[in-house]
Amino acid sequence: MSQLTIIDLAAKLGLSKSTVSRAFRNSSDINPETKARILAMAEELGFSPNTHASNLRGSKSQTIAIIIPEFGNKFFSLAIKGIELVTRSKGYHTLIYVTDHQVQNEATIVRSLSNGRVDGVIMSASGEGHEHNHIKQLRSKNIPIVFFDRNYDDINTVYVTGNDEEASFKATEHLIENGCKRIAYLVINKNISIGKVRMDGYAKALAKHGLPFDDHLVLDTVNEAEENCKDIRQLLRESRPDGVVASVERLAISTMRVAREEGLKIPDDIKLIGFSCLDITDLVQPSLSVVKQPAFEMGKIAATYLFESLAKPLNLKEQETTILESTLIYQDSSKKS
Amino acid sequence: MSQLTIIDLAAKLGLSKSTVSRAFRNSSDINPETKARILAMAEELGFSPNTHASNLRGSKSQTIAIIIPEFGNKFFSLAIKGIELVTRSKGYHTLIYVTDHQVQNEATIVRSLSNGRVDGVIMSASGEGHEHNHIKQLRSKNIPIVFFDRNYDDINTVYVTGNDEEASFKATEHLIENGCKRIAYLVINKNISIGKVRMDGYAKALAKHGLPFDDHLVLDTVNEAEENCKDIRQLLRESRPDGVVASVERLAISTMRVAREEGLKIPDDIKLIGFSCLDITDLVQPSLSVVKQPAFEMGKIAATYLFESLAKPLNLKEQETTILESTLIYQDSSKKS
Repeated sequence: MSQLTIIDLAAKLGLSKSTVSRAFRNSSDINPETKARILAMAEELGFSPNTHASNLRGSKSQTIAIIIPEFGNKFFSLAIKGIELVTRSKGYHTLIYVTDHQVQNEATIVRSLSNGRVDGVIMSASGEGHEHNHIKQLRSKNIPIVFFDRNYDDINTVYVTGNDEEASFKATEHLIENGCKRIAYLVINKNISIGKVRMDGYAKALAKHGLPFDDHLVLDTVNEAEENCKDIRQLLRESRPDGVVASVERLAISTMRVAREEGLKIPDDIKLIGFSCLDITDLVQPSLSVVKQPAFEMGKIAATYLFESLAKPLNLKEQETTILESTLIYQDSSKKS
Repeated sequence: MSQLTIIDLAAKLGLSKSTVSRAFRNSSDINPETKARILAMAEELGFSPNTHASNLRGSKSQTIAIIIPEFGNKFFSLAIKGIELVTRSKGYHTLIYVTDHQVQNEATIVRSLSNGRVDGVIMSASGEGHEHNHIKQLRSKNIPIVFFDRNYDDINTVYVTGNDEEASFKATEHLIENGCKRIAYLVINKNISIGKVRMDGYAKALAKHGLPFDDHLVLDTVNEAEENCKDIRQLLRESRPDGVVASVERLAISTMRVAREEGLKIPDDIKLIGFSCLDITDLVQPSLSVVKQPAFEMGKIAATYLFESLAKPLNLKEQETTILESTLIYQDSSKKS
């Protein structure tokens, strides 16, 4: 393929160079049919505009960053699919970053982005606390950010999330209705956004049904399976729950493993429901009851908000939350004995 | 945070501007300790070099692209973790692209990358065929590419993959040793690299044990679960296999579902082994026998090769394959009845 320029392409199409150039700049100031014709010809000839050069002119990277705490869980992969559906339709690239749940990593990543590498950021937050200078720095550079799933509530932007409190309330109530009296709540960091909100739902369901909130039944543990299995084993032995609400998928999985090792039968000895987007909950033994979040939808909507704020800054006075409904799927793991 | 420049940073450290600049350019021409000191101070002050500006000067994007056919299967998420371990240690960014198994999408993505957006590409190929102009265009721009898992064998570069033929041979032989006589091979596109290589291993194991290779027992199907379940159902009904080698995870999952619906017991009526990096094979019912590829290692090694070829073009006369060993994990799904 020889070095094809925008001038060659314009000549082939019988159009002006500036018209062709507008097609690649994603300008609205061009007839959609003309634009389609230009892009089709460019595709056919294997021409792509020099992004370096167009970065300079438009000072836009045509790239957005997705920052997530972890990779390879179904929730985030579905959310990213939703985001990419939107970004691709806008002709944008996506950079995906994983923080490993470390707010320091998040800060390093965000800082490295604040000098023009991306036009906007979609993030599921990794930390708690109140010092979010890295986010403020980003915003001072007029790079908009949208949160999904996990947020920092002191940042005035859009936050797209599931109806976590309500879903957690329903999941807990479901266990109560199936006879559980000592329900444990398993969480990774009960102080961060989703951990906290899901615990509120759990606590409200207990209160509604006159069950005490017992600190010994709340297990705040870690991501690493080896470590959280140890904690869950201790919980099962010492606090003898008859039901478990796992606020994240990996803790539901660990509970299944530990229960098996401890000779506890699910659902006879202990019932289990967990937040999960796993697509083989029907194949595990017993089939797993889950709160399934609308991950794909969530990504799509977060990306749509980001492009809105790229087109016109939102200037919100407070954080604006969009809540999407989760689906509760009751299977064998929470069945009445 | 005010606009900190590289000059301010150099002054704070008592170093020359060019030394500080080298730390950010990932130059080898700098004392590692000095570099660490510069990066630590930059981190502390929230300084990041202006990538736009440094792109221009060095004409390097400090970014590599990862192109994969799909997202949200454990194999690719582990491989990406391996790649990111290396890229992050080099101070590089990664762009992740998903082709949805469409070679047209792959071509569009690759073309959009060939004008300076990335310095190199790590790819698991989406297509078959022989016309790989998009890859050739990339190489004509001196952007190196490394394949992992799935390759195009006409491109002279490095290819990092599992010992698929041998692993597939062993998996098939394992089913034969457990009494199977009519073993089906399930694949998504038997003509692309891994589909073909894994079928070779299957065929060789049959031949070694004097079993006929029967075309009716080879099912070439699609990614979509609904569609491939229909195909698998037809296979189970019409060709009555007593064993199944699934060349990809999703086909093992679909086989479990269809067998259950058809009232076939695994392993009593039909035995199953599949390529998979799923981490809950012990929790599915029955526990699933798998060929587990070293996905994380594969990503790490592919990235290491890419950085080698960024440092010094490889100029290979033919494709150079690095083969990594998979682990066979035998569980209940393939047990002798």
